Amino acid sequence: MSNGTVVLAYSGGLDTSCILVWLKEQGYDVITYLANIGQDEDFEAARKKAESLGAKKVFIEDLRSEFVEDFIWPSVQANAVYEDRYLMGTAIARPCIARRQVEIARMESAQFVSHGATGKGNDQIRFELTCYALYPEVKIIAPWRIPEFYNRFRGRTDLMEYAKKHGIPVPVTPRAPWSMDANLMHISYESGILENPKSHAPADLYLMTKNPEDAPNVPDVLEIEFRKGFVAKASIQKYPLSLLLSPRGKHGVGRIDIVENRFIGMKSRGIYETPGGTVLLKAHLDIETFTMDKEVRRIKQGLGVKFSELVYNGFWYSPECDFVRHCIAKSQENVEGKVQLSIFKGQVYILGRESPKSLYNEELVSMDVQGDYDPCDASGFIRINAVRLREHCRLQGFSDPKP
Amino acid sequence: MSNGTVVLAYSGGLDTSCILVWLKEQGYDVITYLANIGQDEDFEAARKKAESLGAKKVFIEDLRSEFVEDFIWPSVQANAVYEDRYLMGTAIARPCIARRQVEIARMESAQFVSHGATGKGNDQIRFELTCYALYPEVKIIAPWRIPEFYNRFRGRTDLMEYAKKHGIPVPVTPRAPWSMDANLMHISYESGILENPKSHAPADLYLMTKNPEDAPNVPDVLEIEFRKGFVAKASIQKYPLSLLLSPRGKHGVGRIDIVENRFIGMKSRGIYETPGGTVLLKAHLDIETFTMDKEVRRIKQGLGVKFSELVYNGFWYSPECDFVRHCIAKSQENVEGKVQLSIFKGQVYILGRESPKSLYNEELVSMDVQGDYDPCDASGFIRINAVRLREHCRLQGFSDPKP
Amino acid sequence: MSNGTVVLAYSGGLDTSCILVWLKEQGYDVITYLANIGQDEDFEAARKKAESLGAKKVFIEDLRSEFVEDFIWPSVQANAVYEDRYLMGTAIARPCIARRQVEIARMESAQFVSHGATGKGNDQIRFELTCYALYPEVKIIAPWRIPEFYNRFRGRTDLMEYAKKHGIPVPVTPRAPWSMDANLMHISYESGILENPKSHAPADLYLMTKNPEDAPNVPDVLEIEFRKGFVAKASIQKYPLSLLLSPRGKHGVGRIDIVENRFIGMKSRGIYETPGGTVLLKAHLDIETFTMDKEVRRIKQGLGVKFSELVYNGFWYSPECDFVRHCIAKSQENVEGKVQLSIFKGQVYILGRESPKSLYNEELVSMDVQGDYDPCDASGFIRINAVRLREHCRLQGFSDPKP
Amino acid sequence: MSNGTVVLAYSGGLDTSCILVWLKEQGYDVITYLANIGQDEDFEAARKKAESLGAKKVFIEDLRSEFVEDFIWPSVQANAVYEDRYLMGTAIARPCIARRQVEIARMESAQFVSHGATGKGNDQIRFELTCYALYPEVKIIAPWRIPEFYNRFRGRTDLMEYAKKHGIPVPVTPRAPWSMDANLMHISYESGILENPKSHAPADLYLMTKNPEDAPNVPDVLEIEFRKGFVAKASIQKYPLSLLLSPRGKHGVGRIDIVENRFIGMKSRGIYETPGGTVLLKAHLDIETFTMDKEVRRIKQGLGVKFSELVYNGFWYSPECDFVRHCIAKSQENVEGKVQLSIFKGQVYILGRESPKSLYNEELVSMDVQGDYDPCDASGFIRINAVRLREHCRLQGFSDPKP
Repeated sequence: MSNGTVVLAYSGGLDTSCILVWLKEQGYDVITYLANIGQDEDFEAARKKAESLGAKKVFIEDLRSEFVEDFIWPSVQANAVYEDRYLMGTAIARPCIARRQVEIARMESAQFVSHGATGKGNDQIRFELTCYALYPEVKIIAPWRIPEFYNRFRGRTDLMEYAKKHGIPVPVTPRAPWSMDANLMHISYESGILENPKSHAPADLYLMTKNPEDAPNVPDVLEIEFRKGFVAKASIQKYPLSLLLSPRGKHGVGRIDIVENRFIGMKSRGIYETPGGTVLLKAHLDIETFTMDKEVRRIKQGLGVKFSELVYNGFWYSPECDFVRHCIAKSQENVEGKVQLSIFKGQVYILGRESPKSLYNEELVSMDVQGDYDPCDASGFIRINAVRLREHCRLQGFSDPKP
Repeated sequence: MSNGTVVLAYSGGLDTSCILVWLKEQGYDVITYLANIGQDEDFEAARKKAESLGAKKVFIEDLRSEFVEDFIWPSVQANAVYEDRYLMGTAIARPCIARRQVEIARMESAQFVSHGATGKGNDQIRFELTCYALYPEVKIIAPWRIPEFYNRFRGRTDLMEYAKKHGIPVPVTPRAPWSMDANLMHISYESGILENPKSHAPADLYLMTKNPEDAPNVPDVLEIEFRKGFVAKASIQKYPLSLLLSPRGKHGVGRIDIVENRFIGMKSRGIYETPGGTVLLKAHLDIETFTMDKEVRRIKQGLGVKFSELVYNGFWYSPECDFVRHCIAKSQENVEGKVQLSIFKGQVYILGRESPKSLYNEELVSMDVQGDYDPCDASGFIRINAVRLREHCRLQGFSDPKP
Repeated sequence: MSNGTVVLAYSGGLDTSCILVWLKEQGYDVITYLANIGQDEDFEAARKKAESLGAKKVFIEDLRSEFVEDFIWPSVQANAVYEDRYLMGTAIARPCIARRQVEIARMESAQFVSHGATGKGNDQIRFELTCYALYPEVKIIAPWRIPEFYNRFRGRTDLMEYAKKHGIPVPVTPRAPWSMDANLMHISYESGILENPKSHAPADLYLMTKNPEDAPNVPDVLEIEFRKGFVAKASIQKYPLSLLLSPRGKHGVGRIDIVENRFIGMKSRGIYETPGGTVLLKAHLDIETFTMDKEVRRIKQGLGVKFSELVYNGFWYSPECDFVRHCIAKSQENVEGKVQLSIFKGQVYILGRESPKSLYNEELVSMDVQGDYDPCDASGFIRINAVRLREHCRLQGFSDPKP
Repeated sequence: MSNGTVVLAYSGGLDTSCILVWLKEQGYDVITYLANIGQDEDFEAARKKAESLGAKKVFIEDLRSEFVEDFIWPSVQANAVYEDRYLMGTAIARPCIARRQVEIARMESAQFVSHGATGKGNDQIRFELTCYALYPEVKIIAPWRIPEFYNRFRGRTDLMEYAKKHGIPVPVTPRAPWSMDANLMHISYESGILENPKSHAPADLYLMTKNPEDAPNVPDVLEIEFRKGFVAKASIQKYPLSLLLSPRGKHGVGRIDIVENRFIGMKSRGIYETPGGTVLLKAHLDIETFTMDKEVRRIKQGLGVKFSELVYNGFWYSPECDFVRHCIAKSQENVEGKVQLSIFKGQVYILGRESPKSLYNEELVSMDVQGDYDPCDASGFIRINAVRLREHCRLQGFSDPKP
């Protein structure tokens, strides 16, 4: 008699292979599910492994295109950056993966979903909030939060032993002394030796970007076109998905080393590579400010900060994030045009921009021609803005403004 | 009979020399005032020029140290960035200059102040709001907004002619086809050929930073120490003011090319070099997030955006900017520690950080030890956060979340 | 030879009658325009007066219905309140009036518009920003800001004299010692004896609401239905426009006496009556919180504050206000249901509410049944929320929290 | 052998009496603690009851004055209102009570604290976050979240039986069909028959305020003085604590019936009476806007909203709430002066105000005198504000602004 069916987010690695077997031990039927979001993986090997370990069914799903369309593009529109630096390559992948997991669970009439995320991280939250939001009745099995599981598997050694005992193939190459998460947009590195915030990242850690010191000695110049705040089809045809991938990595763009605040209130150290995302952020910022009204942009900037917090915290599928995405998309209607930029040794330089919809008025702003502008108006503008300041000064009495 | 005394912000250049003479023509006694905020200038030559043109008195004031202490440090505390990119090297210099101008006006019992800023820019506002805020009774003479002046001097040729006629020394080297503003923190370039937002900046425009392509092939590694969000004395002794100056320029750090929104509602194109400021921003961001509570930082981030708007718009001396500065300074009490970073070919890389006051808890966040943390708590945390999302989903009825 | 055609916002009163004649003196053809937005006015008398004073054409436009549909309803959706108290009955009328004025100007090929608003107030700004936003080439004649006009008419006596001289009928009843502005939503009172912020408003000032002391001794109970955040048709049929008018005035609802901050930076004292608007605000707040997701509401609340500032300052027609209105309207999609309330002696009491779209779940929240809720989850929720607080306390060392 | 010592927040009622005995059953030594924050209670009877039930020690603490000083005044400064309506009389009492509870626990070397709050409410969070924030090592026993407890006591009947069995005095008067929480600032009512959001509150529910229909037929006029945003000593002497109590209740002020969003994501219906707090909020709002700079107020308003969310959610003792309180207090330095108001049948009317520190300038704002103001400046002010709007209109092409 089965205790029910579980859809397990399966990576093919040691942890989730042990979880697969352990779930079976607990009396569940296990369906494995592996999403292809552009990470470097032998998907067929993972399929075989899952089947050999007794998965009732195996799903390998290519989500790359919906990851780009539904998750990366809206983040570009939002200039999404968490705590001023992190481009959230992992955070936006989680709802994409979990959305499909829930679809499979519904399709397969599974009451349970499971994953191998740890109990201290953000990813457990991002996975599970998505599951609950899209499938409120689902039950979630998170082994790393179940005492019987985590007390049994206190370290890698315990997993290895269990693996050997249950015929789970054991990795032969030694594991890097940190953990990683990769997709077509970025790679993140954390924990292990990186937990000491003072110690520098080893040079061989980075897999997605070249060391800027070894990057080409000649800049790469490109032009990206936007339409409604999205990368335009023309640009995607010109730089197919590679926008998000290797060419920028070749230049060593998009490496950061930060300490960030997790949703659960811990500070953690993370190292990220987001080559294409960094280029897109800079390009989008440029075309957005070029075309969008100043005050609309100010409001939209606040919504973008909100969006980033929500996504980082796992609320991609929430009424408020839906609302914010809708508002941001509305703000992008005229964000259209071309940005020229150069990429060199880890840095992106904006060179110029043009747009059929810009509010930039060369004549109006010119120092050489007057345009439809009367400089005398500025006197009144300044004096009225000063009304309040002058009253304030008078009330205070004159005082030396130096601190 | 004099019409009164004017304190003129004098640069020694053609424009303000003509204004000096023109003001005398209008019957004013003119006191010239030239602030040294680190720009490359022959101050003694300027003094002699002003005297020879009939200035009643000449003030040359070295404000470099108060510019750093009172304006740059608070901006570093605020992570001050306008429209996500501009570090406001010009915007924070204006209140510094105008503050002293007003002090001189009070000291010399001058009822008037004057400046050579144009009628379309931000600087006129920054100068004048500071003047009104600190000297509410002052009268401001802004020749470039007075029809008799600007109709007489419609271009550089008119100024040259007037100069020749009035014995004003005329510059012999041809002027760059753009305008510039420099201080110890940055140089800005705008107008002229830069007014076409599509045209790339010429390579020889940049004066403060080296072309990253010609920058050293070996990174520079440094460590900056902060105390209360300021650069600590120890670091200032180690890298004396050079923090803000050439060494980082040597690496080509801090170049940006943007279109920004002026306070008066125009979009304008500006190119900026802020080598040291860029390094400090990145270092401060790192140590701030490392030491400051997550939610305090979130509130402080909003105040920093507000601060940037206020400063950009000329409201450094305003009740609200005083208030915001006070709040931000309060938030910095524990922002203390050392940041290690490397600088290479235009880019800044954070390498590590340490602090006696960090909320970072290596044991708590560790994936290898449990610390004072029960993973089971996360289940409750997630489920309670999902209460609202599940209700929402149920009310909507199940619907495909794909757009 | 005419200097051009002016569309003058004409009230029929002494001021704008003098302006009409004065504009003709200056060589303009004058078209008068009087909007009916529900104020108590003899529109036909005004028409005759304008004609007799030489208006080239007279427009009397009934804008009541578009005032309600296009301006009041969106303000109700936004819970629009300026500085926590003022419901902006005047502020939302101005763009309604000016929009039609500009339409007439375009239709009549008039290059000029004019109005009788003073040079210290908000209304000049609200009128003119609307005009510029919808007709960028328009020229505005604001006599109270033209020295030749305001120096000639330094007080009411000067206007009376001019009127007599030019055959302008002079009011026979003495003017109230304050100024007023009325429409179907509200009446405002300011200036004159009200300029002393300490002096109490005289009891006979109020024209729209009864003194609560004289209001009925029995509460009025009503039920208002909303749909998409608007008052539903059913309710409008039940309480036709009177929702916004007398019945609530009968109960003395909606009187406030405040000092507010004008856009131009002065503080001014205003007294307002907004009987129906006050009822609608309370009812809408209730149904909104009942139906809208908590976090959506939080974001929407911020947008509502922004909306109020924009509208108060005259930016109804601006890209940012369009954007904010769009976002707010989006948030209202599920704001649907009925609110029961009672009105008594100046106060509104919410009694109950119901909705087919509420996220309120009686079973879930019940103290008597458990619903789909596990109380144990709250422990984890609290403990995770405390992670950060405990770290903070430990870093600080124990200290007495008493100030 | 004891399992340790628990400090139990004890009310003297049936629930916490059962908890007391149950905790002893579980092997704990129980210290009871009852805070006097102005609720109507027989404290001596509660002491005897606790002693008779085996409390090891009994603390009855009079916190009324610190409740006012440390919690009510800062909330008045903040204009603290949750979701636009709730004045948070319960939310601010919780950290006051828990702070002392933790002090007692430390003093008595108790490792445990306990309370009788339910598992669905906000109060459990407010209590516990305070405890964790001030005593990070404390262990919390929340019986209503412990399955052995809540499964044993599924309703009032179970508690009654248990009480009878263990010699706990059983209340003789029938309980109201809702729950209540009272202190000197307010009473809240929720659950029971109030859980149906449509049903009206029974007239006899209200204990703190008179039915406005029965309130005096003559208004009460009073004057409240503020200093630094606090109620000034002079006013407290004049209206001793009664400010917060009965006289305003006599007029039926401060009744609201709302549906609010709990921190845990449920919507719940609450009815509140806050007579004095409502008067103080209106008075403080008036004097604050009268004295504070417009833009400071705008920023402070945002901080006040944040403060309200934090306090409602239980984060009174958190780094961010400390920070926000500090900033708000700073904003109040000039909030000084007297407000005259009248109270009548449930409503508060502001009549006038005066202050030695107001930015209100009667001459400046006067419609009759010009003051230090040039109306021509307003033209420039408006035209510069319109620059952006005109550009926008031109880019869009002319379009009918009607929706």
